[in-house]
Amino acid sequence: MPKIVTLTTDFGLRDPYVAEMKAAILSISPDAAIVDVTHEVAQFNIRMGAYVLASAAPYFPKGAIHVAVVDPGVGTRRRPILIQTSHSFFVGPDNGLLVLAAEQQGIKCVREIGNIWLVLPRISDTFHGRDVFAPVAAHLANGIAPEEFGSEIHDFIKPEFAEVTLSNGAISGEVLHVDNFGNIITNVRANELAGIGRANVVDVELSDRKLRLKFCRVYGEAELQEPLALFGSHGYFEIAVNQGNAAERFRVKPGDKIRLS
Amino acid sequence: MPKIVTLTTDFGLRDPYVAEMKAAILSISPDAAIVDVTHEVAQFNIRMGAYVLASAAPYFPKGAIHVAVVDPGVGTRRRPILIQTSHSFFVGPDNGLLVLAAEQQGIKCVREIGNIWLVLPRISDTFHGRDVFAPVAAHLANGIAPEEFGSEIHDFIKPEFAEVTLSNGAISGEVLHVDNFGNIITNVRANELAGIGRANVVDVELSDRKLRLKFCRVYGEAELQEPLALFGSHGYFEIAVNQGNAAERFRVKPGDKIRLS
Amino acid sequence: MPKIVTLTTDFGLRDPYVAEMKAAILSISPDAAIVDVTHEVAQFNIRMGAYVLASAAPYFPKGAIHVAVVDPGVGTRRRPILIQTSHSFFVGPDNGLLVLAAEQQGIKCVREIGNIWLVLPRISDTFHGRDVFAPVAAHLANGIAPEEFGSEIHDFIKPEFAEVTLSNGAISGEVLHVDNFGNIITNVRANELAGIGRANVVDVELSDRKLRLKFCRVYGEAELQEPLALFGSHGYFEIAVNQGNAAERFRVKPGDKIRLS
Repeated sequence: MPKIVTLTTDFGLRDPYVAEMKAAILSISPDAAIVDVTHEVAQFNIRMGAYVLASAAPYFPKGAIHVAVVDPGVGTRRRPILIQTSHSFFVGPDNGLLVLAAEQQGIKCVREIGNIWLVLPRISDTFHGRDVFAPVAAHLANGIAPEEFGSEIHDFIKPEFAEVTLSNGAISGEVLHVDNFGNIITNVRANELAGIGRANVVDVELSDRKLRLKFCRVYGEAELQEPLALFGSHGYFEIAVNQGNAAERFRVKPGDKIRLS
Repeated sequence: MPKIVTLTTDFGLRDPYVAEMKAAILSISPDAAIVDVTHEVAQFNIRMGAYVLASAAPYFPKGAIHVAVVDPGVGTRRRPILIQTSHSFFVGPDNGLLVLAAEQQGIKCVREIGNIWLVLPRISDTFHGRDVFAPVAAHLANGIAPEEFGSEIHDFIKPEFAEVTLSNGAISGEVLHVDNFGNIITNVRANELAGIGRANVVDVELSDRKLRLKFCRVYGEAELQEPLALFGSHGYFEIAVNQGNAAERFRVKPGDKIRLS
Repeated sequence: MPKIVTLTTDFGLRDPYVAEMKAAILSISPDAAIVDVTHEVAQFNIRMGAYVLASAAPYFPKGAIHVAVVDPGVGTRRRPILIQTSHSFFVGPDNGLLVLAAEQQGIKCVREIGNIWLVLPRISDTFHGRDVFAPVAAHLANGIAPEEFGSEIHDFIKPEFAEVTLSNGAISGEVLHVDNFGNIITNVRANELAGIGRANVVDVELSDRKLRLKFCRVYGEAELQEPLALFGSHGYFEIAVNQGNAAERFRVKPGDKIRLS
């Protein structure tokens, strides 16, 4: 059974960078099954990278190795890390990118990658994706034990993605991501909305607007071009427009605040 | 020999959705060879999805499993289906998306996917690509017999993509697709144009314009930036501009009418 | 160990073309490991295709087969060629696209692809990527000897990318590529800049501007949004803006002249 190595980056698909990472992996582990999560993370947007990785990672089989590179601090003192969970491995920079996905699975150990023999002969200062993270993932795929890559650390960076707060029966959160369909995905989860979840409508304050939205189970329950609220396929509270673009309609972007009641 | 599973969607490449489908497939069928057809179908554009799938499918080896998801009706009563042809399998929604490709190969049986054990434990209401179609394809790749997935149906939806009509020596059709090079691909096929095909020029009415175009065998037969007509690599009548963009030049979009004489 | 076949094209990802090439390869060589380098080469931009391929190719393991298709002359008299180097194979049109990458590895033999049995039964006049280059690559992956594909030629086309020149202590070159991050990549290499390389600043004339740039080892050494110069991960002289877009800031495009002192 081939080992799965996934890639999540902000490199885009025009340049040679993604192919160079794949080449580095296949040079060390020729049978690895490489799967792209996305290379279209908005540049240097660690929050978006973390969200996309955390959405996809749970569906991969046990033992998958996830490499993620959204790395504005490449070549500075930010550390390369390897996280072990009960389900998988995560390899990338110590800037919060990996932690959302890893915490969902239960973090067992975080290591600083330290062993110089694990990387390509010439390490560039600007492309650790190819010269550090890809080789580490490939050696992991080949069965090298995690403890060979470096020592455990405890002071890794935890992302400050906004917490959801509750007061006076209202829930305050924020927009995590706007997807390709223009759906507005928030950090409010189904269990936090238990009371509201059974209502037919939900009142939403989004930036400066107040909206009363139909609460649906599926997009198709609303009329064409009608706005609606629902829990999306990952269990997050979403605002959508049936066959339309909610983010354009309401001029919303990631990081905007939202309040539900 | 690994089983091929292809994917055709309108999900784009920024979001985690495509990776989640691949993860669902590899969780069930770790050796499947997954090939992307495209994830850039215009959103909810069943016609474009049907065209792209029908163009690519004939080149895959016998036994390939094609999953396609352009699915504005997800979660409503539209049925998930599995089509068997003499050459391959097609898995997706019952909205016309699969039928153009399947009919080219000769449809042997259409089944409504019904067996609840074939899908992930928790079926979301909004993402059947990951929770229904991907697992069905993976189980097919593992050798589960088609009849295990559900009963035959006969009232599946046939797409009404415009038929070509002939009157007074003129052929009326429409624009199926505008490709990345701006080539205008119509639904008129080489055999329907047998008489005109040997002429040196062809008269084309496109929206409100009348054009007399040089009939070429290859793009390079026209001058740089000169418009031309030819049969493209799939046998459809195409209007192009040598090293230019015909769709921009003539302001054409899919669905526009065309008349040839 | 599966044979690696890489693909570099200007086809984009919306259309069925890339999938048709993969289908043609897998039909002949079912176990080939296909890796996308990029399909986002600017249309008909042979220079950009050559640069991206030459950047990625060195990282692939020995024996990799690189197919590249940026082919404005498809169907005219330009020849299909196969280049053998000491490290890999290159398959594509004889228009200069392959030569930059191949010369880096040392060209051993260039052959004109001539054997009609190597291509699909029906060769389209407009899609040699699918009907000629993909099948040739797949047969190579299956172990067919290079000499079976055609006779050696010596008059293949060499690309005319600008030479770097040195006069009065200044180096003149040009912009090879603008990457997805807006980094401006030139054709000046580290060894040509040996003297300047140790300075803290570098004077750059770029189009009509004169800039004095901080010479950094990594992007993060500059302040946020500060311009800088460095050697990128491929050893080329680059101008960047830390977490910003240098090409937009300085209005630079591929082919622009640059002068360093």
